[in-house]
Amino acid sequence: MNLKAYLDGTVAEVDAAMDGFLPGEDVRQEAMHAAMRYSVFAGGKRLRPVLCVAAAEACGGSREDAFAAACALELMHTYSLVHDDLPCMDDDDLRRGRATCHKVYGEGMAVLCGDALLTEAFLILTRAKGGERYTVGDMVEELAITGGSRKLIGGQVLDLEGEGKKLSKEELVRIHEAKTAALLTASVKLGGMSAQAEPEKLEALAKFGYSLGLAFQVIDDILDVTQTTEKLGKTAGKDEAVEKATYPSVIGLEESRIEAERLTGEALAALEIFGDQGFRLREIAEWMLGREY
Amino acid sequence: MNLKAYLDGTVAEVDAAMDGFLPGEDVRQEAMHAAMRYSVFAGGKRLRPVLCVAAAEACGGSREDAFAAACALELMHTYSLVHDDLPCMDDDDLRRGRATCHKVYGEGMAVLCGDALLTEAFLILTRAKGGERYTVGDMVEELAITGGSRKLIGGQVLDLEGEGKKLSKEELVRIHEAKTAALLTASVKLGGMSAQAEPEKLEALAKFGYSLGLAFQVIDDILDVTQTTEKLGKTAGKDEAVEKATYPSVIGLEESRIEAERLTGEALAALEIFGDQGFRLREIAEWMLGREY
Repeated sequence: MNLKAYLDGTVAEVDAAMDGFLPGEDVRQEAMHAAMRYSVFAGGKRLRPVLCVAAAEACGGSREDAFAAACALELMHTYSLVHDDLPCMDDDDLRRGRATCHKVYGEGMAVLCGDALLTEAFLILTRAKGGERYTVGDMVEELAITGGSRKLIGGQVLDLEGEGKKLSKEELVRIHEAKTAALLTASVKLGGMSAQAEPEKLEALAKFGYSLGLAFQVIDDILDVTQTTEKLGKTAGKDEAVEKATYPSVIGLEESRIEAERLTGEALAALEIFGDQGFRLREIAEWMLGREY
Repeated sequence: MNLKAYLDGTVAEVDAAMDGFLPGEDVRQEAMHAAMRYSVFAGGKRLRPVLCVAAAEACGGSREDAFAAACALELMHTYSLVHDDLPCMDDDDLRRGRATCHKVYGEGMAVLCGDALLTEAFLILTRAKGGERYTVGDMVEELAITGGSRKLIGGQVLDLEGEGKKLSKEELVRIHEAKTAALLTASVKLGGMSAQAEPEKLEALAKFGYSLGLAFQVIDDILDVTQTTEKLGKTAGKDEAVEKATYPSVIGLEESRIEAERLTGEALAALEIFGDQGFRLREIAEWMLGREY
């Protein structure tokens, strides 16, 4: 199976699982469940679920056993976007080429919708199949640490605090570690945990996720400078407009490209332990990082 | 030990546990962790933790084993207040006699602070001691169902949607079930689960929590009409000002008082299965519901 077929198939399976997990629009709370589904089924690339499933397979686990974690990760990612886009945060009207949640459902509903997606993430994760090495409680812990004030939310705070300020490269790396690399790391780790992977494989996945996440963010920053709004599906040049620190603004465009290549190399090197079983993760990394930048 | 000593002692122990669980102000993310602590350590009555601990004891469990769940419940309660108070929601400046989170830290930080408290609730719950009858995963499931779009958040939505509308008694009960009774029910249930209680005792706790929660909300609605801002520690008459449906506005003040008594009776009746071991829960219920109204 080529990569495109693998990605399409996995996204379809994860979306079907998510559709089953999420409350329907027909039950009470129509408006809220519609808002949740609007935000979740918005044509995202499902990078985190795909990484989670591929990591489970790289560790010899089954795809199906990784679906609960894969869906939980996507819901956590989606909630963070919904809250990020709020007027009191990044104030974005457009996301993936569509009106953002608060533009469609109002600000109060968007706050609650994000809250509900975050809570639902943990609920869905309890559907994961725990084992002896990693219990459901261990997986909940991994997701909660990743999503909390020390990582994902902490990154948002640093981001808010950093706007309009001149940041050092170290400060910028801290933001990107927290905002992007942490959840990608958790994605592959939760995949590994679903497969009850050996500790040294889980460690390799963590290294892979971290380098992949940073590389991905550097490339995103580059693209924000070099691409059009139409091509991105979100407002281009936004970072510069709000004076948000990015790799190109802090270390320059050329250095950013070198950094992206270095991190890509590190990510791929971390996969060696998996031998042939790591080929999907390698393919996905090359695809994620191979965007023209 | 009299009730006051029991309450004071339990609150002190739970607060100490929560202080240990929550990230310190001195680590990275000073501002966020300060905002979290400002919201949590705000002189709340800790009803949910106290109910959780007392329920564990009523089932023959240890106090200490209930602390993780008790803290998780308080964090979930606190997050819901922080988001409730936001300008795009209830727009409240005052909470427990102090400036609300967004007045002190700004709106963006208050959104993130609520998110972090919610996430931290799940993290802390993973510190609970699971057992054969109820695992940590089961407890996470209970908290996530309670906090999600079907209950706690669903109640907020109904509340938002209901403002300025004439509601029936049934609609009002649905809101109060979701907004108040659900989390009080989860409080005693999680206490029972921490104690690995027999299923029939868990069911009795659920009935107790439900009636207690509704009774508590009816009394709260009555007090909003009959008390001063100073005495409440929050803006009095607020419900009427925003034309929010309350028991007194829907069924009248006298009927509301009768309803409160009926529900109180139901709550106490549910405790019979516990015999003498239920005396603390009975005392707490009488204290919660015995406010002059």
